[in-house]
Amino acid sequence: MQINSLTDLFIHSLSDIYNAEKQLTRALAKLAREADNKELVDAFKQHLEETQGQIERLDQLLEAEPNIKLKRMKCHAMEGLIDEAKEVIEASDKGSVRDVALIAAAQKVEHYEIASYGSLCTLADQLGMKQAKTLLGQTLEEEKKTDDLLTKIATSKINPQAAGK
Amino acid sequence: MQINSLTDLFIHSLSDIYNAEKQLTRALAKLAREADNKELVDAFKQHLEETQGQIERLDQLLEAEPNIKLKRMKCHAMEGLIDEAKEVIEASDKGSVRDVALIAAAQKVEHYEIASYGSLCTLADQLGMKQAKTLLGQTLEEEKKTDDLLTKIATSKINPQAAGK
Repeated sequence: MQINSLTDLFIHSLSDIYNAEKQLTRALAKLAREADNKELVDAFKQHLEETQGQIERLDQLLEAEPNIKLKRMKCHAMEGLIDEAKEVIEASDKGSVRDVALIAAAQKVEHYEIASYGSLCTLADQLGMKQAKTLLGQTLEEEKKTDDLLTKIATSKINPQAAGK
Repeated sequence: MQINSLTDLFIHSLSDIYNAEKQLTRALAKLAREADNKELVDAFKQHLEETQGQIERLDQLLEAEPNIKLKRMKCHAMEGLIDEAKEVIEASDKGSVRDVALIAAAQKVEHYEIASYGSLCTLADQLGMKQAKTLLGQTLEEEKKTDDLLTKIATSKINPQAAGK
């Protein structure tokens, strides 16, 4: 697909994040299984539900904007980010050190999404798509909150425990 | 390599970002060639120099911490992020729409680095590596500033121009 206009770019970016979110739902289920700390397991499970809600929000956006048709594409960046999480799982045993590694990997994912939804909000604004901008903005705020929650769990609970290893 | 301690995780994460920065120097040279807006070309060139400085800072860290020996590894996430930038270059002609796409791609890269250096700073702090923490913190601040600069260039200059296409 050629990208000749901001609408083309919006479709390209939305197709990318749609695939990224789908990949992420599978990965988050794995992160929840592989984490040890209960608070972290719960945070991953909660973010899995939130991610499913974010996909529904993307579907809502597509209903509101019938001219926007997604392309089938694979988000290579999310693929790489998930590979990194799998690498650290394979290289570690269940416990606090792995939990610190999982938090770091999940925060990279959150930052990918923060950058993506940030650009999408700006594009929606530029293209005058008010409802799309509101929906994308809601997800952007959720991603930022998840990033903050992971930092809080890491610094208050897991890092000090892992430092004793 | 097994990750059994926070030191192992620090080495793993540092090796990952070292390879990511090396990949990025090549990619930034390409972004500077493919961008159209002069301010954006200059921003990519400036960030290329900054990235070379960040690699030197990582070398300084390794000199200061002789127990930290990097592993040879490939950062798959940065590979995916750079693939995305190449995809949009192939799909677009030189001009303001491509510039908006390049900014979005570059901001995803910046956010990857913000998350990586953020986790590395926390680990260095936890491990009592004061000089390493200072060096990593300097780079973290540079990445945040680059992200802000890209937002500024996008919203003030390039997006309004691209919206006319």
